[in-house]
Amino acid sequence: MLSIGIDLGGTNIKSALIHRDEGIIAQDSVPTDAGRGPDYVLDRIAESVQNTRNKATEDPVGIGIGSPGIISLDRTTVSNPPNLPGWDVVNVNEELKKRTGLDAVVENDANLMALGSSRYGEGQDLDSLIMLTLGTGVGGGIIINRELYRGATGAAAELGHVIINFDGPSSNSKAKGGVEAYIGQRFLIRNALPLIKKHPDNTLAKEYLDKPEALEPVHLSREADRGNNLAVQILSEAGRMLGYAIVNYIHILDIRNIIVSGGVAKAGDWILEPARAAARERLLPPYLEGFQLSYESLGNDAALLGAGSLAFELLANHR
Amino acid sequence: MLSIGIDLGGTNIKSALIHRDEGIIAQDSVPTDAGRGPDYVLDRIAESVQNTRNKATEDPVGIGIGSPGIISLDRTTVSNPPNLPGWDVVNVNEELKKRTGLDAVVENDANLMALGSSRYGEGQDLDSLIMLTLGTGVGGGIIINRELYRGATGAAAELGHVIINFDGPSSNSKAKGGVEAYIGQRFLIRNALPLIKKHPDNTLAKEYLDKPEALEPVHLSREADRGNNLAVQILSEAGRMLGYAIVNYIHILDIRNIIVSGGVAKAGDWILEPARAAARERLLPPYLEGFQLSYESLGNDAALLGAGSLAFELLANHR
Repeated sequence: MLSIGIDLGGTNIKSALIHRDEGIIAQDSVPTDAGRGPDYVLDRIAESVQNTRNKATEDPVGIGIGSPGIISLDRTTVSNPPNLPGWDVVNVNEELKKRTGLDAVVENDANLMALGSSRYGEGQDLDSLIMLTLGTGVGGGIIINRELYRGATGAAAELGHVIINFDGPSSNSKAKGGVEAYIGQRFLIRNALPLIKKHPDNTLAKEYLDKPEALEPVHLSREADRGNNLAVQILSEAGRMLGYAIVNYIHILDIRNIIVSGGVAKAGDWILEPARAAARERLLPPYLEGFQLSYESLGNDAALLGAGSLAFELLANHR
Repeated sequence: MLSIGIDLGGTNIKSALIHRDEGIIAQDSVPTDAGRGPDYVLDRIAESVQNTRNKATEDPVGIGIGSPGIISLDRTTVSNPPNLPGWDVVNVNEELKKRTGLDAVVENDANLMALGSSRYGEGQDLDSLIMLTLGTGVGGGIIINRELYRGATGAAAELGHVIINFDGPSSNSKAKGGVEAYIGQRFLIRNALPLIKKHPDNTLAKEYLDKPEALEPVHLSREADRGNNLAVQILSEAGRMLGYAIVNYIHILDIRNIIVSGGVAKAGDWILEPARAAARERLLPPYLEGFQLSYESLGNDAALLGAGSLAFELLANHR
C-alpha cells in the first residue's frame, strides 16, 4: 500500500512516496514561494504530489500533509499558518482534491513527527511517547496507546509553551518563561551571546560575535567536541532547561519515553545528558523508572513518514 | 444499582452507600487509627463497609476506595501511602474480599475526585476536564472523553509537582518550584508569613503571628471579604501561581475546563479570579476559547461518589 506524505514548510514543500512496509521509496522537493499566496502554494503542493505520484506503481491511498498553524479537528483545514502569508483559513482537503483527485488529511507538523517516530522510528516499540521538536521554535506531539493525542480541539501538545519560570524571558508576545524562550534555536543563541561576549578570546567570540545570526547549535556542539568549555556550558544550560520541561510533561502525562528531533537536538548528548540529569533531579521517585530521553535518528523523514502514516490510517478505507 | 465508596484518610475512614442515579444515600465515618498498622486499618474499613451495607436494600456491586499512595495499574494494590505507617505494599482487593466478601477496586484519591465531578458534579456535561485538589498538598485528576486518564503506570496527573519556576521554593526534598510549593495549604501560609510580619497592625498579624499554624485559607478569605487588603494580596498571589500552572496543563492537554476543590479552593474568587487573569495573560490565543475555571460544589463528596462510580464501572459485571 502506498501514500503520499507532504511536509509543508515556509521555504520548501517536501513530498515522499511512502510504502506501508518499506517507508520512503521516493522523494521530491519544490520551493514554496510562500509570498505568492495560497493558490500558488496549493498548485505547488499539487505539482509535488504529481512528481511523486509519477514514481508510484499503484495508486496511493491519499495524501497526508504536515503543516504549521492551527488544524481543524476534522483535519481538513489550516488556519493562519506562520510563514505562509495570506492563508487565513484554507480547506486543504477540498483544494487538493480539486487539483489531484486524491483525498488529503492535514495535521500539525510536530504531531506528525511523533506519529512517524511511532510507526517507523525510535518509538516503534513504545505504546506511548512524547516527541519534542527542537528547532527555531519548540513543538511537540504526544502518542498515547499508539494513537496521536489531540485534545479537545486538536491543539494538544504545545510543549514549547510550557512555563518553566513564570518570571522568565519571552519567546513571543504572550508566552513568557516557556521552555521555547530558553532553548528555541534563536533564543538559545540570544541567551548565549552575553556569555560569549565575556570571553573575547574564545573561538566562539572570534568567529561569531560579528555575525551572531550565523551561529547555530551544530557549531556549539562542534566546539564542545573540541573541548571548548564555553560551548559545553551553553549547551549544558540549555539541556538543564529542557530537563525541567520534561519533568512537567512526565508528571502530567506519566509517559516516560521522550524523543527529541530538530536542529537543536543535533547537539546530542551535550544537551541531552544535562537534560537527563536535571529531570532525574526533579522527577518524583516513582517516575524515574523507565525514564528515557532519546534522539530520533530519522530526522525530518519522521515528519514525512508520519504524514504518510496518517493517510494510511485515515484514508485507506475511503477508496 | 448500589455501590460502596470509601475515602481512606490518615484521620478518618469515610464510607458512603451510593445509588447509581441518586448519588449518596447513606454515610458512615470511623477513625483510622493509622498508627495501629495495616491489619487494624483494613478491619476498620471492613467495619465501615458493614455499617454502610446494613443500610442497603440490595447487595452492592462492590467497593471503590480512594487512597493516597501509589496505586497498581490493576487497581488492587496500594504502596507506601503517606500517613498510613507500615503499609508498604497492601493488596486491598484481596484483604477486603476476605473481610467482606465484596470485590474492591482502589484508585488515587484525586483521580476519584475527578471521576466524581465527571459523574455527579460540575463535570457532568463535560467530555474532558482537569480536577485540581488544593489541600495540604496539590493533587489532580484528568478526565479525557469521560474516562480517567491514568498514564503508562497509573501515576498520571501529579499536577502539584508541575514546575512553574525552576528556581522556586521546595515542597518536598525533590520537588522544587512546583505549584504545590506556592499554593499547597502549609506553603501558602509559610510564604505569607514574612508579608504578614511586615504589617503588625493588620488583623492577620494580631490574630495569627503567635500561632501561625492556626491560620487557614478560609481565614484569609474571610478577612478579604471584610476588606483586608493584605489578605486580598496574599490570596491573589496564590491565584496567580495557580494560573501559571493551569497554562501548563492546558498547553499540554488542550483541555480547557479546570475544576478545583479542597480547602484552599474554598477561598473562592479571591484565588480563582487572579488565577483566571494570569492564565488568560499567558495562554496562547487559540486556547482562550472555552477556558473555564470553576469550583466543585460537591466538596469531599466528589471523592466518595468517584469511588462509588469506579465500583459501578468496573465491578458491576463481575457479579
